[in-house]
Amino acid sequence: MKSTIITIGDEILIGQILDTNSRQISQSLNAAGITVCERTSIGDDAGQIVEALDRALGQSNIVIMTGGLGPTKDDITKHTLTRYFGTELVYDERVGEHVRTMLARRGIEFNDLNRGQAMVPKCCTVLFNAHGTAPGMWFERGDSVVVSLPGVPFEMQHLMEDEVMPRLRSRFTLHSIVHRTMITSGIAESMLAARISDWENSLPKGLKLAYLPAPNIVRLRLSAYEVDGEEARSTIDREFAKLYKIIPGHIVGFEQATVQELVHRNLTDSGRTLAVAESCTGGTIASLFTAMPGASAYFRCGVVSYSNESKEEVLGVDAGDIARHGAVSEQVAKAMAEGVRRIAHADFGVSTTGIAGPTGGSPEKPVGTVWIGISTPEKSFAVMRDCGTDRSQIISRASAYAISLLYEQLH
Amino acid sequence: MKSTIITIGDEILIGQILDTNSRQISQSLNAAGITVCERTSIGDDAGQIVEALDRALGQSNIVIMTGGLGPTKDDITKHTLTRYFGTELVYDERVGEHVRTMLARRGIEFNDLNRGQAMVPKCCTVLFNAHGTAPGMWFERGDSVVVSLPGVPFEMQHLMEDEVMPRLRSRFTLHSIVHRTMITSGIAESMLAARISDWENSLPKGLKLAYLPAPNIVRLRLSAYEVDGEEARSTIDREFAKLYKIIPGHIVGFEQATVQELVHRNLTDSGRTLAVAESCTGGTIASLFTAMPGASAYFRCGVVSYSNESKEEVLGVDAGDIARHGAVSEQVAKAMAEGVRRIAHADFGVSTTGIAGPTGGSPEKPVGTVWIGISTPEKSFAVMRDCGTDRSQIISRASAYAISLLYEQLH
Repeated sequence: MKSTIITIGDEILIGQILDTNSRQISQSLNAAGITVCERTSIGDDAGQIVEALDRALGQSNIVIMTGGLGPTKDDITKHTLTRYFGTELVYDERVGEHVRTMLARRGIEFNDLNRGQAMVPKCCTVLFNAHGTAPGMWFERGDSVVVSLPGVPFEMQHLMEDEVMPRLRSRFTLHSIVHRTMITSGIAESMLAARISDWENSLPKGLKLAYLPAPNIVRLRLSAYEVDGEEARSTIDREFAKLYKIIPGHIVGFEQATVQELVHRNLTDSGRTLAVAESCTGGTIASLFTAMPGASAYFRCGVVSYSNESKEEVLGVDAGDIARHGAVSEQVAKAMAEGVRRIAHADFGVSTTGIAGPTGGSPEKPVGTVWIGISTPEKSFAVMRDCGTDRSQIISRASAYAISLLYEQLH
Repeated sequence: MKSTIITIGDEILIGQILDTNSRQISQSLNAAGITVCERTSIGDDAGQIVEALDRALGQSNIVIMTGGLGPTKDDITKHTLTRYFGTELVYDERVGEHVRTMLARRGIEFNDLNRGQAMVPKCCTVLFNAHGTAPGMWFERGDSVVVSLPGVPFEMQHLMEDEVMPRLRSRFTLHSIVHRTMITSGIAESMLAARISDWENSLPKGLKLAYLPAPNIVRLRLSAYEVDGEEARSTIDREFAKLYKIIPGHIVGFEQATVQELVHRNLTDSGRTLAVAESCTGGTIASLFTAMPGASAYFRCGVVSYSNESKEEVLGVDAGDIARHGAVSEQVAKAMAEGVRRIAHADFGVSTTGIAGPTGGSPEKPVGTVWIGISTPEKSFAVMRDCGTDRSQIISRASAYAISLLYEQLH
């Protein structure tokens, strides 16, 4: 079963907002075995909406649209759909009462514009939006379904989960889409591809391989579309199993999970604790861990020691080491990891110190030079990594390297 | 001048990654006066790529594509473009040497796949990618330009800035697009729309108004496309000025800048310094500041004090206060801000302590309760904010509240 996603709004086309709805909807549809063949973003323009709808219905049976359902004049999706389906707008009592109640709670008067929000196309099924004022709408035409949802991300998400997905499951006979991902480490994408090319060329028809490189790791994703789920899963398992002979030692996991999720699970399960001292990564490593529910069980403390004084006074790094070797050095990285592990009474300490740029580089230590320190109950050490040339990339690569170095020490 | 953006990759359609490239490209094109009429995301499929290209060239003169340029078999954009433009692949010495050098730095052998990365369509202009192995490609057909860029966000961004935008500016005669945004607060979207409807209906032709609601504020954006920049800017200013009489007291600003950018500028200019103590925001505030180049001038130290021990031992919070009032309390928030300001010898201290959920809430302190502490050379205080119900939303809202509270203290 194929689908198309259409997101509507000038604010997307001018880059004012990031379109996160498309991704959320893609995930929900994929999980139910519905292939997304295209995602398209267009402006608040009736001609463009009609054209996009025609094309979407030509290539797929399910069309999910978001946006353009607000009360104001720039929002035209509802009127356009009303004309597209040759119907008229009628007042919906339940939606009207809901809008009135929501506004009253915020001390806002119900006016003509709000009355307009309760007008819905006569031929559609109204999808009640408990979290906002604009309802979702479900249209049928022949074998196809067109769903229009509000653009506010959490309203859209609740409607997808509570209304759209259950209806799609009962309306269509859905086959499975199976994705499985293997994580490899310590081998560059091009070397990996060369090593497994014979395996890749002899993959069963219907399996699609993708390489997803990230710092220090390459994910291999095998996908099977519109298949029997059980059978596809065992076929993929069989194919992945062959790789153990081809790239022994490079397979670190099978998860969709990020490396920080693997660390999170390991530390949670083993009852061990973590502390982080960050210079160039500036809090990014701490925020990656603390974003995960339950991190408080193992994450003891993070220190963002941007200044040399804070490296000395908070983490106890030797001022002489900083003077002799510089703040970006093996000695300081190691001392930071040891220091934060000690002050936080943690089992593991991780540190970063580097030159994130754009200034501060030198011929010996160019922008992108990052020392990563690790301190465990057994040992402390530091390694140097070249993390690129762009500030945001250096921060994210250094964070990824540090977390994967930590992960290697957890076994 | 109109453009279309095409992002290519199965990982986008299955929702594995968030498409941030489209937004970045939209912003760059808009800033140069190029209208984006559509953004579309498709799979790694030659048929889909050709179809999307045909449609894009039918509706616009500029097509920017990203993705599908990696060395592995699933990346087919380059081969598809080579066929589309009826040309052949040739080896590019400069790209080849660059790939070899980049790999050598990482200790990776140059193999056939890497040689393939240096093969480029004969008819294109190669856009040299200093930050990665896949070059960008610039094709011309009649009055139109098709640009293919790698999908790695920072490589794409550098190529857009350094290569694509300067070439587009010299290749086409560009008119301006002008967007200006006014921030209103304390008035709901529907009330605001009712109050300004006469003004909206009498806007000069060519000006487009959009309402962008967010918690507590509504942004009004006026846009003028393909116009003389100076004239459009003064027209917009004149129209916005009329609103001072219609909605007095509700206009709070005109900035596109984020609040952390305003703080960054203020602290940099005034030579004052900052330290941050984060519990529930877990390093997010520190990472927002340190993401900005030059933050080391004022950002002294951040502490992510997740455990009570670290609040006491690192920040010097009184254990009795934690026992009496709980870690999520006015007293502890204030003591954290004072503590981090003291240990970092900073002018300003900011702290957060709250319940990010999903567990840990209670009837008195439900999930979403966050205390924010501020310590300045003159005073210390803390305020409570309800930051919602979802963990990631709580973290980002609490961070935003804390930064805007700090901003208020900088004047």
